[in-house]
Amino acid sequence: MTLETRLTRSLSLEVPIISAPMAFAAGGRLAAAVSAAGGLGLIGGGYGDEAWLRKQLACVRPNSIGCGFITWSLQKQPHLLDLVLDHKPKAICLSFGDPAPFAEHIKKAGALLISQVQTRRDAEHAIECQADVVIAQGSEAGGHGQLRATFTLVPEVADLIAARSPETLLCAAGGIADGRGLAAALMLGADGVLIGSRLWASSEADVGPRMHEAALAAGGDDTVRSQLMDMARRLEWPSRYTARVLKNTFIERWQGREDELMAVAEEEADRYRAAWSNDDPDNANTFVGEVVGLIDRVATAGEIIQDLVAGAEARLASAVQHIGGQAA
Amino acid sequence: MTLETRLTRSLSLEVPIISAPMAFAAGGRLAAAVSAAGGLGLIGGGYGDEAWLRKQLACVRPNSIGCGFITWSLQKQPHLLDLVLDHKPKAICLSFGDPAPFAEHIKKAGALLISQVQTRRDAEHAIECQADVVIAQGSEAGGHGQLRATFTLVPEVADLIAARSPETLLCAAGGIADGRGLAAALMLGADGVLIGSRLWASSEADVGPRMHEAALAAGGDDTVRSQLMDMARRLEWPSRYTARVLKNTFIERWQGREDELMAVAEEEADRYRAAWSNDDPDNANTFVGEVVGLIDRVATAGEIIQDLVAGAEARLASAVQHIGGQAA
Repeated sequence: MTLETRLTRSLSLEVPIISAPMAFAAGGRLAAAVSAAGGLGLIGGGYGDEAWLRKQLACVRPNSIGCGFITWSLQKQPHLLDLVLDHKPKAICLSFGDPAPFAEHIKKAGALLISQVQTRRDAEHAIECQADVVIAQGSEAGGHGQLRATFTLVPEVADLIAARSPETLLCAAGGIADGRGLAAALMLGADGVLIGSRLWASSEADVGPRMHEAALAAGGDDTVRSQLMDMARRLEWPSRYTARVLKNTFIERWQGREDELMAVAEEEADRYRAAWSNDDPDNANTFVGEVVGLIDRVATAGEIIQDLVAGAEARLASAVQHIGGQAA
Repeated sequence: MTLETRLTRSLSLEVPIISAPMAFAAGGRLAAAVSAAGGLGLIGGGYGDEAWLRKQLACVRPNSIGCGFITWSLQKQPHLLDLVLDHKPKAICLSFGDPAPFAEHIKKAGALLISQVQTRRDAEHAIECQADVVIAQGSEAGGHGQLRATFTLVPEVADLIAARSPETLLCAAGGIADGRGLAAALMLGADGVLIGSRLWASSEADVGPRMHEAALAAGGDDTVRSQLMDMARRLEWPSRYTARVLKNTFIERWQGREDELMAVAEEEADRYRAAWSNDDPDNANTFVGEVVGLIDRVATAGEIIQDLVAGAEARLASAVQHIGGQAA
């Protein structure tokens, strides 16, 4: 099963699907499974746990997967980039920070530069940094991001790319969990999609069963963007980024009480990390996007990608029925 | 030029486009132009200015257009519904409040019930109220709304409708300004679209030239959701609704100073209304959505609808090229 776009042709993929480099959840196993299914799997470099990263890289072949970094965190440990580049990844994805300090180094090492952006302004900068692929991520996405929506950000960045750098590739991220979303992203002008939550709910993701259960039981109305999780984890995210998670006991307890949380941050950090380790979705958070309302089972990455492609093919094949004079 | 969907067939339209009942901007002139172009035009009943409403109804033919109400406001002046129903509108659209008290009355009068919702939960209720058309409005939309995004809300409501009430029609609202958005909405499972900002930037909309200019100069990064405008206008919106507008001097002055604004609400209300009357986009707000970044000229409603349909047709006709084995 294949689906052709500029992205599949440029990156030699069978399907225009990249997996999101989700911190903690996206290890080498998930990335390898996504690439094996014809997409491009990305390991989530996250907050820079070197031992963990070495372990993930050990289980993937060179030139088969990519790795994503939280850029402001990478700036504190820039040697991790070389650690990954030495493994000959197909691509490096930089999110949440300025790609400029790393762009040339990545491209010279022979990896593609993928730049994830959340605003038109940052897309301009990504193009200036000669990103090969720009990911336009909407606010409906799970995990960290900003406020623009996928539905408007994608065509606005598509217009920008067409005007300034037509060879740059564009993927949509945020809100895509099935063939409808993939087909819609292509209609909006994307060359492919970045899939987070749907692959988070895969058997290859490093996610506990209770977090998975909480997500399967939730609908899109049950998520919220918040900074409370980062306060509790004492992670120094720049203030413009919030993260989308499932509402839970932790959020209910602290929402609107940010100052109080900061005052007890040390003990709360221990409590939060313990809940996270215990796979406790009430007291630590399930990092998923609004599409959680479209996800009703955990499947293998291969099955998920097959469903995405088959669903998109069916939608795209039937698109012509709407055109005047055609049978409906 | 036509585009066929379940919506066009059920409502006898030529194109699956409904115009948003934008308070102040959508009068009889815009509604009539949209219906003349093959869509369904809606007058914005807004906050219930009876004299204004009578004037708008006087310039449209019976059974040609519909009228939208802000439901919580209609509850204060329910007689306005009969004033409109006496004019034999094709549809009544209820947004921002419970449609239940009005649903049966509207349907008995022979008008279609259109219910605009912003969450899956409210979509369930709209179906229980036997809405003929559910509008799933995303947060990227201009003017009032809530937080769910179009990209996830539409397929989630489509699944709900398929399971519980397959004959109910579904339109997407928020983020749609050109053929890409229309084609994407159909891929996501919508039967049509509700268009706000793009028709706000039409020559038939009741919008001043300086507000139009401000919108044409803006990009999608320049909008914000806020409650400040309603505070300044002393409009009693339920707290879950905010409105998307262009950032401006007024927003910069008061953001984060809500309590101070409330303390001087009376004089600020006079100032805000004066700025509004003076078509001053710095001190009153331009109510447009994130798609403002896709709008680069004011055109007639007829031209806008023709562009939307032609653009969607081109996208839908080329959709099949992505399917494996097809030439690209």
